[in-house]
Amino acid sequence: MNTLFGAIEAGGTKFVCILGSGPEDVRAEARFPTTTPEETIRQTVGFFRCQQVEHGELAAIGIASFGPLDLDPDSPTYGYITSTPKPGWANTDFAGMIRRALSLPVGFDTDVNAAALGEWRWGAARGLDTFIYLTIGTGIGGGGMVNDRLLHGLLHPEMGHLCIPHDWGADPFAGSCPFHGDCLEGLASGPAIESRWGQRGETLLLDHPAWELEAHYLALGVVNWIYTLSPQKVILGGGVMQQARLFSLLRREVQTLLGGYLQSLATQKEIDDYIVPPALGKRAGVLGALALAMEAAQSPIVNRKS
Amino acid sequence: MNTLFGAIEAGGTKFVCILGSGPEDVRAEARFPTTTPEETIRQTVGFFRCQQVEHGELAAIGIASFGPLDLDPDSPTYGYITSTPKPGWANTDFAGMIRRALSLPVGFDTDVNAAALGEWRWGAARGLDTFIYLTIGTGIGGGGMVNDRLLHGLLHPEMGHLCIPHDWGADPFAGSCPFHGDCLEGLASGPAIESRWGQRGETLLLDHPAWELEAHYLALGVVNWIYTLSPQKVILGGGVMQQARLFSLLRREVQTLLGGYLQSLATQKEIDDYIVPPALGKRAGVLGALALAMEAAQSPIVNRKS
Repeated sequence: MNTLFGAIEAGGTKFVCILGSGPEDVRAEARFPTTTPEETIRQTVGFFRCQQVEHGELAAIGIASFGPLDLDPDSPTYGYITSTPKPGWANTDFAGMIRRALSLPVGFDTDVNAAALGEWRWGAARGLDTFIYLTIGTGIGGGGMVNDRLLHGLLHPEMGHLCIPHDWGADPFAGSCPFHGDCLEGLASGPAIESRWGQRGETLLLDHPAWELEAHYLALGVVNWIYTLSPQKVILGGGVMQQARLFSLLRREVQTLLGGYLQSLATQKEIDDYIVPPALGKRAGVLGALALAMEAAQSPIVNRKS
Repeated sequence: MNTLFGAIEAGGTKFVCILGSGPEDVRAEARFPTTTPEETIRQTVGFFRCQQVEHGELAAIGIASFGPLDLDPDSPTYGYITSTPKPGWANTDFAGMIRRALSLPVGFDTDVNAAALGEWRWGAARGLDTFIYLTIGTGIGGGGMVNDRLLHGLLHPEMGHLCIPHDWGADPFAGSCPFHGDCLEGLASGPAIESRWGQRGETLLLDHPAWELEAHYLALGVVNWIYTLSPQKVILGGGVMQQARLFSLLRREVQTLLGGYLQSLATQKEIDDYIVPPALGKRAGVLGALALAMEAAQSPIVNRKS
């Protein structure tokens, strides 16, 4: 019988919880709207308690959370959601509340680092040691691994806030980021698309100029991440990437911007294999949380530096 | 008696070779102009052979080289300088030639990754696990460590080629990068400064507007690297950074661009400790090569993935 783990994908609008041993063995699932920390965490804990009665003890819980987060194992506020603008959630001891309520080891990381871990374990990044995972949706967030270990550093990456060239001639939209205006997220997130064109991205036709512009901005982000990290693969998920044409437009634009600089990405097949959607699709986040739980079962704080 | 190592800092204009056991114990040093690979490598090998007669056998040699390089231990051209425009040096089996001539283990990496390793072992990055090292000079190059291991990935970082916003109003200079025109290197390297202002950077007065503009472009690069990698420190070396005012201008501009986003860099002391020159100064590269040699002595190919 397989060891069972719990997983929480904590987003700004909803929580997704599952219990299982891997992508092919998910025993139960629940979803709650994200309200107050107390209420949402109470529902989450209740779900896992009920499931443990039915399925037996879990070995650990993994949490893939919206941020920013304190991921420094030596910090007194390790496991907290820190300065989020989301009402009620700033300075919430998220990992601690779950750990104390369920008396289980807890793995804790950003939603995007968790998704990266899930893709590494079961998806598009299997066998790689250095790659990035981006989500392009309500915001733009990025995580990834370098030399087989998740990116943390001083805080954790905030890849969406890159400063990129803004094509004011073609695009007079000022940008929607409350921190920086026309950073990448301010120019290319879902809300930026909606503000610029006056309609939601999913209602824009395939040949709308929005998509060429979106591909251009995202390509500027992708080449900057390539120059900085030299990833072996770039995985792009999130709602905006559901637009069918965007991958092909983006791949072509990345090749153009690189200017032949990376010879190993010059052919169509090479770029098609390099910039890809998550193999786990929309399940990358919650399955990544499951992968975090599996690591936490082996050591109480995952990814502590060696 | 200390174990002795050899180190080669291979630049586009000169080679620097040393032999020793650390920054406080350098027994000999030699410099040669970089001419053809055959001639320059013959001089290098000759230097180490002579020194071994006097000082005894070396344990290993480290090479910190200009690039691009093949650093994939599984590649048939591992250890080569690959597609450099420098005449005669493209497709040169640099590490192999040194290894065969001297029959010693060879450590091989980019000049900037080597400098990062040197700073981690003996300098400004001691005790850190994730940081970057940049050189701002004839070109702009970057390397670093993530979770205590050097950044490699698909190729190796090419941090100088970031796409950043070009302030055409204040700066009509088109950029000097042969690949991308106005990428970061094209706008902010030493040759870019000279082309834009018609005189070399070291001759520009302290209050010349060149320095505000230079600080602005470099700050755009630094914040993009921060957002992508979340380094615990940013070390900036190279000829351009010798300008006394540049660090203070750059630190202030980075704080402005971050827009309060990273609370831990908000005070003067915090930013002063975060963006720093190399503690090893101009010796970071060659001492980094010595650190590569020390790693190579323990395993014949350094930084092979575990």
